[in-house]
Amino acid sequence: MSRAFNFCAGPATLPEAVLKQAQEEMLDWRGTGMSVMEMSHRSDEFVEIAETAEKDLRELAGVSDDYAVLFMQGGASSQFSTIPLNLLGDKTSADYVNTGIWSKKAIAEAKRYADVNVVASAEDNGFTSIPEQSSWRTNPDAAYLHYTPNETIGGLEYDFVPESGDVPLVADLSSTILSRPLDVSKFGLIYAGAQKNIGPSGLVVVFVRKDLLGKARKETPTMMNYQVIADNDSMYNTPATYSWYLAGLVFKWLKAQGGVEAMAEINSRKATKLYDFIDGNDFYANPIDPRFRSWMNVPFTLADDGLNGEFLKGADARGLLNLKGHRSVGGMRASIYNAMPEAGVDALIQYMTEFARERG
Amino acid sequence: MSRAFNFCAGPATLPEAVLKQAQEEMLDWRGTGMSVMEMSHRSDEFVEIAETAEKDLRELAGVSDDYAVLFMQGGASSQFSTIPLNLLGDKTSADYVNTGIWSKKAIAEAKRYADVNVVASAEDNGFTSIPEQSSWRTNPDAAYLHYTPNETIGGLEYDFVPESGDVPLVADLSSTILSRPLDVSKFGLIYAGAQKNIGPSGLVVVFVRKDLLGKARKETPTMMNYQVIADNDSMYNTPATYSWYLAGLVFKWLKAQGGVEAMAEINSRKATKLYDFIDGNDFYANPIDPRFRSWMNVPFTLADDGLNGEFLKGADARGLLNLKGHRSVGGMRASIYNAMPEAGVDALIQYMTEFARERG
Repeated sequence: MSRAFNFCAGPATLPEAVLKQAQEEMLDWRGTGMSVMEMSHRSDEFVEIAETAEKDLRELAGVSDDYAVLFMQGGASSQFSTIPLNLLGDKTSADYVNTGIWSKKAIAEAKRYADVNVVASAEDNGFTSIPEQSSWRTNPDAAYLHYTPNETIGGLEYDFVPESGDVPLVADLSSTILSRPLDVSKFGLIYAGAQKNIGPSGLVVVFVRKDLLGKARKETPTMMNYQVIADNDSMYNTPATYSWYLAGLVFKWLKAQGGVEAMAEINSRKATKLYDFIDGNDFYANPIDPRFRSWMNVPFTLADDGLNGEFLKGADARGLLNLKGHRSVGGMRASIYNAMPEAGVDALIQYMTEFARERG
Repeated sequence: MSRAFNFCAGPATLPEAVLKQAQEEMLDWRGTGMSVMEMSHRSDEFVEIAETAEKDLRELAGVSDDYAVLFMQGGASSQFSTIPLNLLGDKTSADYVNTGIWSKKAIAEAKRYADVNVVASAEDNGFTSIPEQSSWRTNPDAAYLHYTPNETIGGLEYDFVPESGDVPLVADLSSTILSRPLDVSKFGLIYAGAQKNIGPSGLVVVFVRKDLLGKARKETPTMMNYQVIADNDSMYNTPATYSWYLAGLVFKWLKAQGGVEAMAEINSRKATKLYDFIDGNDFYANPIDPRFRSWMNVPFTLADDGLNGEFLKGADARGLLNLKGHRSVGGMRASIYNAMPEAGVDALIQYMTEFARERG
């Protein structure tokens, strides 16, 4: 088929313009006679690619020189261990907020290294709302406060940045990075697996405030030591060069769209029209507190679960792909990251309208 | 320019046919309307890609069901920690052979977790020869014996597989995997960064004997726990899907060439003609004991170091790229992995002949 609208939660759709450029450059990057994936990571050509990507990312996300920007491997799941190993220092306890499946994974891994204090949990409300910060039982002596600004599976997104005082704030931004403006200066550390809003899987981007470096526990694998990675410009060993290059193409594309301010406008419009449609139609439902609905991941259910298979089959036939919800929650989920064109959301609403009319 | 001959040690040249196929499939893999890098790692399509790659790799390398085959991230450098964390079990000591820079890196990281016993070192002979195994001071109670079959920087390669008795043998096969037949059953664990003979950087392949699983130390990050990765078919988290796909294309290409037996014949021919030329010409020299010369990485020096710059410039002009030796050893290095066509070696010898005639 021609290019479909791919609503996968990740690895996710990429901008068609980025894929086309990668395609054109596949065998010969700018007359070098090589693909980017065949270049030495220490070559002038690749170092330029890498540095440009970092510069564009800093500009897009508003990352000051107070932070190191790292291009690491192992995905956000590796960061679940890397964070306590690096940030605990001589403390023993860390604060975590539980808002869903990804929070729980981060908590489970952190418990292997730290006394984890769950300051608040959305479990009581079925993970449909974010507990008010006034109710959080934070520990002023925690090494850091970790939260998950957007739960990719549940579709639950914070509309505020928690206040953490002197405790460094740590956030898993995998599914929302670069989707809207964010005041990075409020954070001690931000990490994001690339495969949603940045590029292909196998790359994870970390912003870490430089004063937090150098405190890794002695058992920390060298490849997980932020200080080592920062000191070596993310080239302590061979990085995931091709993924880094593709991320750079995505950053250029985002700049051409007008940066995160422009993306926020588009993303807000895409999400709002989809939620408005769901709310206005008896056949579909989304359980999340409207204040905390995710702009990136929109789960929804049909009035009759027995029609799920038929709904997905019809969607596939129209090139509306990967709408099946995560196995842990069922139903449907439309992931509408930066690279999902507004036309994709329009086509989805059109299909949902027709399906509800015919089968609802 | 058109495609050059790229002698880079890694990331290294890939088969042109593989890059062309990746190029063709970039925007739409087999009519799915998606790039492989946009596919869910749990989709039927990607699972088929992943399983086919593993099956082909097992067939090419001769890996039996006694071994788990893992597709991990973080490169060989991450394995330097992963190995002691997983294999020490209740032992405290591990044996290592020191034959050059990569051995030393593996040793340095292992020392952070284990009492490292260096059973033999080529330092005494300036890393030009492999110490006879009869001289090795092995520890029968070691958790494992680690060696580096090919030193990518020094160009020093074992022509034998060490006997390790009941102690599991562990090998960093990054630069020689699939370059010639190997009896995998002699090994406890084999690991290989992909960016030399397998595919793009950001992927590391591990063969681990299943009876060695399940002994990870409690501080092991979950993403470094072989048992967890094996139990989840290398999909505990999102793997480096696009790199995995490209590796699969390389495996298909290798099978089409006739597998590792055919590659061994070609690789032997390529290396032999280059070493023969170097030995037969007073202007060039290679310091390695002929018995242990690498088939994959051929370092050489010019009679006059002052001509290095001119040599490299002339090579570049002919599309013979990345011949500069590693900064730690100087001189030149031609890496001639599986994907380097014999014509590339012929073109290099032709250029070296002319350069020596004109400037020697």
